Amino acid sequence: MREVAIGIDIGGTFTKYGIVDREGNCLVDGSVPTTKERELKKYLAMLKATIDRDVAGLSEQVAVKGIGIGAPNGNYYRGTIEFAPNLSWEGVVPFVEEFRKFYALPMFLTNDANAAAIGEMIYGGAKEMKNFIIITLGTGLGSGLVVNGELVYGHDGFAGELGHVTVVRNGRMCATGRRGSLETYASASGIKRTVFELLADSIEDSEFRDITFNELTAKMISDAALRGDKIALEAFEITGRYLGEALADTVAHTSPEAIFLFGGLANAGDLIFEPTKKHMENNLLKIFKNKVKILPSELKDTNAAVMGASALVWKEL
Amino acid sequence: MREVAIGIDIGGTFTKYGIVDREGNCLVDGSVPTTKERELKKYLAMLKATIDRDVAGLSEQVAVKGIGIGAPNGNYYRGTIEFAPNLSWEGVVPFVEEFRKFYALPMFLTNDANAAAIGEMIYGGAKEMKNFIIITLGTGLGSGLVVNGELVYGHDGFAGELGHVTVVRNGRMCATGRRGSLETYASASGIKRTVFELLADSIEDSEFRDITFNELTAKMISDAALRGDKIALEAFEITGRYLGEALADTVAHTSPEAIFLFGGLANAGDLIFEPTKKHMENNLLKIFKNKVKILPSELKDTNAAVMGASALVWKEL
Repeated sequence: MREVAIGIDIGGTFTKYGIVDREGNCLVDGSVPTTKERELKKYLAMLKATIDRDVAGLSEQVAVKGIGIGAPNGNYYRGTIEFAPNLSWEGVVPFVEEFRKFYALPMFLTNDANAAAIGEMIYGGAKEMKNFIIITLGTGLGSGLVVNGELVYGHDGFAGELGHVTVVRNGRMCATGRRGSLETYASASGIKRTVFELLADSIEDSEFRDITFNELTAKMISDAALRGDKIALEAFEITGRYLGEALADTVAHTSPEAIFLFGGLANAGDLIFEPTKKHMENNLLKIFKNKVKILPSELKDTNAAVMGASALVWKEL
Repeated sequence: MREVAIGIDIGGTFTKYGIVDREGNCLVDGSVPTTKERELKKYLAMLKATIDRDVAGLSEQVAVKGIGIGAPNGNYYRGTIEFAPNLSWEGVVPFVEEFRKFYALPMFLTNDANAAAIGEMIYGGAKEMKNFIIITLGTGLGSGLVVNGELVYGHDGFAGELGHVTVVRNGRMCATGRRGSLETYASASGIKRTVFELLADSIEDSEFRDITFNELTAKMISDAALRGDKIALEAFEITGRYLGEALADTVAHTSPEAIFLFGGLANAGDLIFEPTKKHMENNLLKIFKNKVKILPSELKDTNAAVMGASALVWKEL
């Protein structure tokens, strides 16, 4: 009987899930709305009913070994989701405690970027690695750190918040109320802000002079860069510089074998990898130079979060 | 029969050693000159002869369980000392490989700050901690990171170089050829540089207006601060600010329970602890605020490096 794990990725709008085997084959996946049931118990009942229906509908018998959950502000130690700004449940949500009332299975919860790190370790490019980092470049910047083959959760379960290291003192405003965080520069929203800064600062023509801030997307910036738009090219250079400089400091902390870049901005390929690598190397201590690989994640964007969540089960069991 | 470890701390001038039991009692200690024998084998023979004489002279029989070595640029994985600027042996020194020819005992080598971290974990204030950091504030700034109860060595054995994170882009020159490293601001030499910057910048009177750069010591700065010298007080505030800001970024990486400060500058007490704590807290992400303790190391300065080196043995066995 094939052994499988259930991976669940909780997003602000949808909760995605998948039934995944040890080799990373996803037998079936689906989703339920996260926001439809504001009451946690009703939401969990709906989620269970949907998953169970899919498991029952599989063409082969499977043995479900556990459930892995990735959630914004997920706390691994406590199995809680804490003050997640984009979810309708408020405060500290005892997610695992409540979900255990529905499933008598091993259950593990962590945040999305940590789940991605474990996905990379179990199914992706980090299978043979004991020390690596994953950077998720979405609207914000998330990260998962692996040291000695184990995820770094820290004392409180919240370690690995590289999006919130300060790269510019008194720099750009961040949603957290702080200023100059890495994610205000190196993320999909960060590169938009850089484009607008460049439009203000330079007199260079650009296709973005007719685009509003709200219309602009990171994808539009990479498309324009490939067409040779100078503002777009400069924005990638600057984004890679901030990211590379910050990663040099991160290397001084944990000296990883590789740093994986994942998510929308990472799909821009050389546009983001080249300046990131260059500026990281320029800022590394000599003993670290030419050692640390900057690699694209081998997880597919479409269901990486679900895969990562399912990988938690194989990692823990 | 009492079980003991031999702890060895290799410095530029002297190599100190001690015979230490599991509880951290040092039964005997001593030293040999590091530089007298430039040839490694002769130095090791001298070191062994001296240690063996001390072991033989103990008033009780002991069982030596292993040897722990702390050395500048020590590489844990390879047992090597690599390109240490203050030692007369050049290049990559296969220290453990050569020393094994003299002792058939388990032997472990790491850098001085990592040894201090393990000393804190085995004998000091971190006995119950799984996630903590030690910062050694000497002429430079060293660090040892502990995650999930294990020292962070990283992929290459050189992790934990927090003295070389960049705190000011294009800031002060560092001996490594880089600029703006934390240790050019937060260390005994860093605070001297800050005093001289303040003497240049301000018109405040100070007892240091009659002192040369080479005469000035960190101890003189803390003594002057206690007497109310405004330049000295401001220098501590600035030093704590740089250190606190950098530690906030470090917390975002590994979220430790505590950060221990060790070494000369840490002996200045509140003068350095208060601004460090304040500026760290001001820069922390909300989820990390009021959680991370900043504590004085419980290792005694006089033989902390030897104690730390001996602790390596108990940690590994």
